[in-house]
Amino acid sequence: MLKNNLLLKTLRKEKVSRPPVWMMRQAGRYLPQYIKLRDKYDFFTRVQTPELACEITIQPVDIVGVDAAIIFSDILVIPQALGMTVLMEEGKGPLLPNTIKSLKDIESLDETGITEKLDYVLKALTLTKKELNNRVPLIGFAGAPFTLLCYMIEGKGSKGFEKAKAFCFSQPELAHQLLSKITRATIAYLKGQAQAGADVVQVFDSWSGLLSPVDFDRFASPYLVEIADALASHVPVILFPKGSSYALHSLSGHKSVSGIGIDWSIQPDKARKESQNNIVLQGNFDPSKLSMPPAEIKKEVTKMIKAFGVQSYIANLGHGILPHIPVDHAKAFVDAVKEYSE
Amino acid sequence: MLKNNLLLKTLRKEKVSRPPVWMMRQAGRYLPQYIKLRDKYDFFTRVQTPELACEITIQPVDIVGVDAAIIFSDILVIPQALGMTVLMEEGKGPLLPNTIKSLKDIESLDETGITEKLDYVLKALTLTKKELNNRVPLIGFAGAPFTLLCYMIEGKGSKGFEKAKAFCFSQPELAHQLLSKITRATIAYLKGQAQAGADVVQVFDSWSGLLSPVDFDRFASPYLVEIADALASHVPVILFPKGSSYALHSLSGHKSVSGIGIDWSIQPDKARKESQNNIVLQGNFDPSKLSMPPAEIKKEVTKMIKAFGVQSYIANLGHGILPHIPVDHAKAFVDAVKEYSE
Repeated sequence: MLKNNLLLKTLRKEKVSRPPVWMMRQAGRYLPQYIKLRDKYDFFTRVQTPELACEITIQPVDIVGVDAAIIFSDILVIPQALGMTVLMEEGKGPLLPNTIKSLKDIESLDETGITEKLDYVLKALTLTKKELNNRVPLIGFAGAPFTLLCYMIEGKGSKGFEKAKAFCFSQPELAHQLLSKITRATIAYLKGQAQAGADVVQVFDSWSGLLSPVDFDRFASPYLVEIADALASHVPVILFPKGSSYALHSLSGHKSVSGIGIDWSIQPDKARKESQNNIVLQGNFDPSKLSMPPAEIKKEVTKMIKAFGVQSYIANLGHGILPHIPVDHAKAFVDAVKEYSE
Repeated sequence: MLKNNLLLKTLRKEKVSRPPVWMMRQAGRYLPQYIKLRDKYDFFTRVQTPELACEITIQPVDIVGVDAAIIFSDILVIPQALGMTVLMEEGKGPLLPNTIKSLKDIESLDETGITEKLDYVLKALTLTKKELNNRVPLIGFAGAPFTLLCYMIEGKGSKGFEKAKAFCFSQPELAHQLLSKITRATIAYLKGQAQAGADVVQVFDSWSGLLSPVDFDRFASPYLVEIADALASHVPVILFPKGSSYALHSLSGHKSVSGIGIDWSIQPDKARKESQNNIVLQGNFDPSKLSMPPAEIKKEVTKMIKAFGVQSYIANLGHGILPHIPVDHAKAFVDAVKEYSE
């Protein structure tokens, strides 16, 4: 049915002629067409209005020609659906004024009716799936439990999320209760996304790299795997534990995980070795490198594909695209993948 | 001469009965005695007045009983000595209002007379060495060239230093000119520190972990090694390329490097393996773990020492101590190392 099914074929480990390509944060900030909508509608209006989310999601498919769309939304919709107040100031990052401090706070989070409360995301997925008209697959997503815990305890973005980590280390039982609650909500949410039209889901553990390998195995990994196990029969799952390349070996051993995203802190050949040549890898272009001239970008992308290999590989950045990147630089990245031939 | 020479013996790979212990940022923010001085004198007064810097440097030796003192100063004294304006707002981090943008900006940096311009640091070292009265060794330090470039181009702290990295990637020749200039100034500065009384020097590459392994080898490693090569005959050199554990293999091959600091993103046994069991390792306690109860801290420290081994190991944090840590927790960390027996 899909006219371009490179991503799904790759995630099924079928042979492809070239890797699929998409970019984290491809729907957003660097696109003039997005900025126009941003100037007109506030963040939550854009996220909660299916027609706007759909339009924003499809923009990069039309403009830069990526091989997959990823629904325009935010990872903090889960804390919001659990009953927390989430404020979003343009260009300033999120603010959660009432952070989690105690067992009582955790118990007061209401995990019932998650898909009803996040119905607007599911509607956006269904509408986008229809509007895409099978041109490319549609990716759904959620924040990983540890990363959501970071925001729910810290209350805002942070370099080191020390408050959140101190909570985990000094009150591990409470942390696990919170992580379990987030995990259950996330599983319900992602199942809803699969039903609503998501062909693939990605789980973003943006802050897992702040944990040591041992603490990753305590506070991040079990919940990532629980989500993958619950979703695998519904939809392929990509995990992106940013900064945690130390986890490639263990995560790649789980059959329910279809792909693992990596950032640029690990070289492709080493990532292949660590993951026992056993899993689809996604990444890992340093987004700062999109500031180079387009011809240089293309050279670097070619090198990257050579290093990963064409099979079992999804070309992507190692983190979200930066706001100041010119559109033709983003296009050079995508074109270089499309022009690649072995 | 030194009554406690555990650190120097360890850096010479001589056998010790237990590892030496100190903590990054041990002189400062979590100590009530420091906070009193901070409330009375502004940042640059504290840094530029040898008597104040000396008093602050010795505080943690008296209060928490560390095995080494590290001079109270700042890595941004080098950009300042090169002619840049550096502002420091309490609790807000540094601000360099006139950033480096062009060849002209780089050429206008004046690398002459570095030790004269930073005479106040050298005087502080000499005074502290005298006041310590050989109780423990004194560590001098400097920021690594790549990390200083980050601030000189970005102009302030940043999560990803994308502007600085974009400068390196799109104008690599200019970046290398700037890095070379910083390196020359740093070598002169650290030689001055050794002469003035520093028994050991540490080079902090706080942001090198933002680089991929390949880019670390371009923009960070050569300059770190150049500094170590120039200093090795004067004083033992510890390099701390935070977040760059991928560089352990290559850096541990340089004879001029006496020790390498690591953060908690790599496990001790893996760090030993990567560094070919060939170098003194320093670290790598997650500073957030000092929020645990003292008894738990002690257990974790004991585990850490077991994993690294007593020989060729300096117990430390993997990053600076956090401002809110109670003094008795810091003391528990130090005591656990002192109480360790094989």
